[in-house]
Amino acid sequence: MSNPLMADVAIIGAGPVGLFAAFECGMLKLTTVLIDALAEVGGQCAALYPEKPIYDIPAHPAIEAATLIENLERQIEPFAPPRLLGRIVTAITGTAGAFTITTDQNDTIAAKTIIIAAGAGAFGPNRPPLDGIAAYEATGAVQYYVKKREAFRNKRIVIAGGGDSAVDWAIALKDIAASIAIVHRRPKFRAAPEMADQLAQAAERGEIDLVIPYQLHALHGASGQLHTVEVADLDGKTRHLEADILLPFFGLAMDLGPIATWGLDLAQHHITVTPSTCETSTRGIFAIGDVATYPGKLKLILQGFAEAAMAAHAIHPIVNPGTALHFEYSTSKGVPA
Amino acid sequence: MSNPLMADVAIIGAGPVGLFAAFECGMLKLTTVLIDALAEVGGQCAALYPEKPIYDIPAHPAIEAATLIENLERQIEPFAPPRLLGRIVTAITGTAGAFTITTDQNDTIAAKTIIIAAGAGAFGPNRPPLDGIAAYEATGAVQYYVKKREAFRNKRIVIAGGGDSAVDWAIALKDIAASIAIVHRRPKFRAAPEMADQLAQAAERGEIDLVIPYQLHALHGASGQLHTVEVADLDGKTRHLEADILLPFFGLAMDLGPIATWGLDLAQHHITVTPSTCETSTRGIFAIGDVATYPGKLKLILQGFAEAAMAAHAIHPIVNPGTALHFEYSTSKGVPA
Repeated sequence: MSNPLMADVAIIGAGPVGLFAAFECGMLKLTTVLIDALAEVGGQCAALYPEKPIYDIPAHPAIEAATLIENLERQIEPFAPPRLLGRIVTAITGTAGAFTITTDQNDTIAAKTIIIAAGAGAFGPNRPPLDGIAAYEATGAVQYYVKKREAFRNKRIVIAGGGDSAVDWAIALKDIAASIAIVHRRPKFRAAPEMADQLAQAAERGEIDLVIPYQLHALHGASGQLHTVEVADLDGKTRHLEADILLPFFGLAMDLGPIATWGLDLAQHHITVTPSTCETSTRGIFAIGDVATYPGKLKLILQGFAEAAMAAHAIHPIVNPGTALHFEYSTSKGVPA
Repeated sequence: MSNPLMADVAIIGAGPVGLFAAFECGMLKLTTVLIDALAEVGGQCAALYPEKPIYDIPAHPAIEAATLIENLERQIEPFAPPRLLGRIVTAITGTAGAFTITTDQNDTIAAKTIIIAAGAGAFGPNRPPLDGIAAYEATGAVQYYVKKREAFRNKRIVIAGGGDSAVDWAIALKDIAASIAIVHRRPKFRAAPEMADQLAQAAERGEIDLVIPYQLHALHGASGQLHTVEVADLDGKTRHLEADILLPFFGLAMDLGPIATWGLDLAQHHITVTPSTCETSTRGIFAIGDVATYPGKLKLILQGFAEAAMAAHAIHPIVNPGTALHFEYSTSKGVPA
């Protein structure tokens, strides 16, 4: 048997929050290894919406998801954590200071502590239950993610859903699409109030067709080519919307997968943690980002970043017992002489 | 009497965390006003160390403090909060939903809620007790902040202190200075472990002279021009270090000023808050960033940013009673249809 890979901290999940955890640990001289089920780092940002602009990363007025990941990669470069990609962690054994992690590829990692930054876990889109949708998915007439904005140039697009994805993409695609209709079964959108406002203004200018309150009813076309999307209101009255592409944004199905079997306290498919340290119910195992929950938790990338800092600082004394960490400030404050 | 300035949220303190609070409030359609004692926004970042590189802002591998502030300014541009600069808030009266704020310039602001992002308050440097130091301060031979890195080109520099400021600046100035010595009274530096490592490596290469454990003893020179800095070890043995400029980095004296009189619960010159909301002991008044404390608090700009998001979300129902906020995600997740 070869020697196992060793690290102070095994980070499970290499999305933006997992990557930043590698940075925060690196700044505290903790060695890390990054493990992810996907074949590349970046999590949903890289896999689902690399060209989506994100507006609420501090000091980035707008940053595309892929650029966010590139910047984080540059930020952790000095620490060069080993990466085990395309691996699903199947089991964790041991206790704080001496965990053993095994993957579906039979890797063995010896880690003193663990940070779980698994986001939505093994995520996948919620698919609308429409007859014959698979044929349209196969041709790209129905898509669940926008990977290349250019692919939508001069297309007639119907967007379905009422959340941030639906609203943000309606706004982001309106200038290149031939037409945009957005279908939502409620009269009000559940997006950032500022973005909902921008949507209403675009609709007033006739740039976006608000089809509310309606829901998806049927797809019409031939050979995987879409002609119209049929929508129905609450009374069953239907409308046909001409369309080349349907983008249903009904959220991700969250699936913890094997994580649910590791004996950690869970609450509604999330791992419960102590707010100020992000430690789970198991000593030495921490959870940060979207997978973690505590009272008042906000599911923002920014919160995940802050949680990464808290977890790293809480881990330092576990890895270095008896060594005080004389570091706190990100800015120039100095200390009394 | 003219009508008072009105806002959903008065933000006291326009440093990086206060600026980002204006953004988070803006995204939730909360109107804000920014108030600061300094004549410009940016707090310490702008006033004390505009050229200092900061390494732990997520997705910014390194960003100068002034650039951080510029980026935050661009991020809040869409919301264009009014700014009352060069004003010290002297009093707060009223209760949640109807606060009145007055300043030393007799401004009156009517605000439904308040976020205090006052950093170190009315901050100033801790000055070393050396005879005749004022004459050297007057000529710039003793300086407490690095505002223009270029001003140190080809100078012989003595840095005093053992914290982040001392270590980061020793590293940042070593390539342009004629020489750098760093004086610390302990053998170990209290800086980020990664930066302390870089310092040790630079010392090994002879680029920085580590003068440890020594402390400042006397200044020698004439007419405000420095010749040598005399340092002493714990036994009183002294050394003379040739120097053009002494940079003492002994931290900031934190001074809450009038804030201490507003009836908020305090702990060791900080405002105590509920961790998940950042609300103070007074309903409707929140505190975020370095001025706020709770168990496990880390004084990082990043934490202040995350706290700004938490405070904005906690404020939304106070300003909009009975209106549910259907917004949570920064990324594309959508919501079930």
